[in-house]
Amino acid sequence: MKAKLTEIPGSILAPQGFRAAGVFCDIKRLGTGKGSDKGKKRDLGLIVSEAPATVAGMFTTNQACAAPVKVCVERVKKGRARAVVVNSGNANACTGKQGLQDALEMARFTEEALALPHGSALVGSTGRIGVTLPMDNVRAGIIEAAVLLGSTAEHAAQAAEAIMTSDTRSKQIAVEFKVGGKSVRIGGICKGAGMIQPGMSPTGRRPAAMPLHATMLCFITSDAAVEANVLQAALREAVANSFNRIIVDGDMSTNDTVLVLANGLAGNPQSAIRNPQSKGFGHFQFALTHVCLALAKMIVRDGEGVSRVVTVRVKGARTFADADAAARAVANSPLVKTSWHGGDPNWGRIIAAVGYSPATIIEEKVDIGYSPPGSREILWSLKRGQPTSATFKALCAAVAPKEFDLHVNLNLGQARAVMYAADLTEDYVEFNKGDVSDPSSLGG
Amino acid sequence: MKAKLTEIPGSILAPQGFRAAGVFCDIKRLGTGKGSDKGKKRDLGLIVSEAPATVAGMFTTNQACAAPVKVCVERVKKGRARAVVVNSGNANACTGKQGLQDALEMARFTEEALALPHGSALVGSTGRIGVTLPMDNVRAGIIEAAVLLGSTAEHAAQAAEAIMTSDTRSKQIAVEFKVGGKSVRIGGICKGAGMIQPGMSPTGRRPAAMPLHATMLCFITSDAAVEANVLQAALREAVANSFNRIIVDGDMSTNDTVLVLANGLAGNPQSAIRNPQSKGFGHFQFALTHVCLALAKMIVRDGEGVSRVVTVRVKGARTFADADAAARAVANSPLVKTSWHGGDPNWGRIIAAVGYSPATIIEEKVDIGYSPPGSREILWSLKRGQPTSATFKALCAAVAPKEFDLHVNLNLGQARAVMYAADLTEDYVEFNKGDVSDPSSLGG
Repeated sequence: MKAKLTEIPGSILAPQGFRAAGVFCDIKRLGTGKGSDKGKKRDLGLIVSEAPATVAGMFTTNQACAAPVKVCVERVKKGRARAVVVNSGNANACTGKQGLQDALEMARFTEEALALPHGSALVGSTGRIGVTLPMDNVRAGIIEAAVLLGSTAEHAAQAAEAIMTSDTRSKQIAVEFKVGGKSVRIGGICKGAGMIQPGMSPTGRRPAAMPLHATMLCFITSDAAVEANVLQAALREAVANSFNRIIVDGDMSTNDTVLVLANGLAGNPQSAIRNPQSKGFGHFQFALTHVCLALAKMIVRDGEGVSRVVTVRVKGARTFADADAAARAVANSPLVKTSWHGGDPNWGRIIAAVGYSPATIIEEKVDIGYSPPGSREILWSLKRGQPTSATFKALCAAVAPKEFDLHVNLNLGQARAVMYAADLTEDYVEFNKGDVSDPSSLGG
Repeated sequence: MKAKLTEIPGSILAPQGFRAAGVFCDIKRLGTGKGSDKGKKRDLGLIVSEAPATVAGMFTTNQACAAPVKVCVERVKKGRARAVVVNSGNANACTGKQGLQDALEMARFTEEALALPHGSALVGSTGRIGVTLPMDNVRAGIIEAAVLLGSTAEHAAQAAEAIMTSDTRSKQIAVEFKVGGKSVRIGGICKGAGMIQPGMSPTGRRPAAMPLHATMLCFITSDAAVEANVLQAALREAVANSFNRIIVDGDMSTNDTVLVLANGLAGNPQSAIRNPQSKGFGHFQFALTHVCLALAKMIVRDGEGVSRVVTVRVKGARTFADADAAARAVANSPLVKTSWHGGDPNWGRIIAAVGYSPATIIEEKVDIGYSPPGSREILWSLKRGQPTSATFKALCAAVAPKEFDLHVNLNLGQARAVMYAADLTEDYVEFNKGDVSDPSSLGG
């Protein structure tokens, strides 16, 4: 169901009743003189709802999951939360019992600073793996953030900045729509850049049939009145069609987290969003998915070293699992990704990737083509396994833009899947090989 | 069973009764003035057994498999062959009916040129996908090669050169050992460089439990007297422990092929290699695996842009499938591979990869460490999920050499798996993004 949406400024502070802050507390230990705020990069963000909020979350299915993820998985089950505290520069992953204690302390200290009920703060971390948090810095940051909390677009922007790691720009969006006669708003911020092939589930456990796939963090606020279980169902669907469909490098992080807090201050009747078949739920789902997909695409565009973004559209598969597997094989193939970087319409590498994927294909049935983003004007390079008369020059022109769609039709069935993928560049390698002369520069 | 092996020169022409040649017939259409043979690179190789030989093969399980693979799968079933004709510069893959006709014609023309029985020539191709073979050039090359056939080490070297694509050097080996009182020899040549994560089976069909995993081609000769079904069993085992355990970039080719011809001229009794429990079979298996593993490692070391080679040793897994999955996840992780390139002992990326692999792990049980190749002197960076006291400087020193072993102990069971892996470099990206101003330069 489509809903009438208006994009509005303010991201997470566009919905009523939220406050936020983003501060520098030296977790990243950069001190390089680069960046904002007198040469220091913000590294601690705080988001607070003035009113009690329902909450939903999706978490990495990586078996080596970070301490903050473990804390959130448990707390989200209660369905209610008031605040989210997040740091960048340190993932608090693979930090054992100390890490878990630190994540709990980060939450407890936030609750105390804001006079919130015990258990009502959620926690997130991103950065280097295997190093324990500098808790004195974290506590100082929380106190400063609590003092600086505000509800302007500038406050939202500072929180969005505080969660950045290798991101080159902050990622924000907000939308407004109607539910039950009331104006409802959803806003979000996120970070990405590397270790991006999320595969999130509500419990952090991997369903058997779930595809295997960064650190991405996303925090969403809404003033909708919506029950926690309904919010969780809507978030699961939204993430399945957005964050779980992006690939930068194919590595799945220990920290991937999406959290939504909905405080009900829009004043819509909860019942208007309760029934999955209702117009109200449909509009809410559409808006939440819109926010997640917009943020997910920002992650791909700003992926480490990314020069081109390709939407891989596979159709005609026997099953969704086949369509998904074929699309992921293409989106993860180093040879396909380097050819995108080079502007090379190398369909041979694409059919090779589809052919080695777990998906069932028949080579003689496969079509491969290109179009501008979202367009149905497809230039086919391969039809039924055979090169078409499309010229090399024409194909080069089709893959030259910064963004294009790649179409693969297996012509075996009705199932389809989409992946939002990035190319593989020298800059990605250069960035990720690290600088061993400066251990603090090495990302997780 | 270990056997006493002696490495000897001459590669595929070390065994008795074989002749070979490698010529230039302009399939690559380079004509750049670079390379050997008056500025031309050899692109057609021919290997011929003077006596009838038994044959075995292993082939890519890519569903988009090349025409020469289709031809070989059928012919190897008969268990007998006399010759192999191979071209580089064109993969004859995704070339439809014309491609299949061309592969058959390439074999037929070879048989005619050498006065061999119909159906006794095997065929191989490697290079760009989706372009039909320039058959006039191929025929001219076969005639020239047939005239130039010889049995010196120089002839073997020319055949090894003719199968190279992005390889920077040719890959050859031969060994001698005793079976039933007779000296038996096995020799081989191969090529690799990119699109390397082979997953070969005897039929080209993928067993359900088989891991998904280049173009690599390998041609092996032996003067052993060994029945075709025994040869096939030995080759399957040898490939499972060599070529199917290497990863350069993780892409699986449409053309991967290993062929062995054994002509019996060593004069050992066939019965000495018949029983899988026998000493004769044990020695033959050991020697064949040695040849395959030596060639497989040459492929990894000469992979496109490779700067470091890492042997990933996973043990303590619940099942082999788990050990294999964990090792492949590490060997395929772009973030792990770029950290190897940078000489960064970033174990956080390693545990993240193990954690998102399909293998069952318990983070608090995982050990990660480094050693010199083949050594048991392991410097542990992580023990039971916790960083050890090993210094960053010491860990950097452990990952600084051009080759090292990475040890992962899941501490959950007895199963183990090894992968021979390459790092990911700017040079790999630079090479594979291609040069669209020169379509002929674009590898398949």
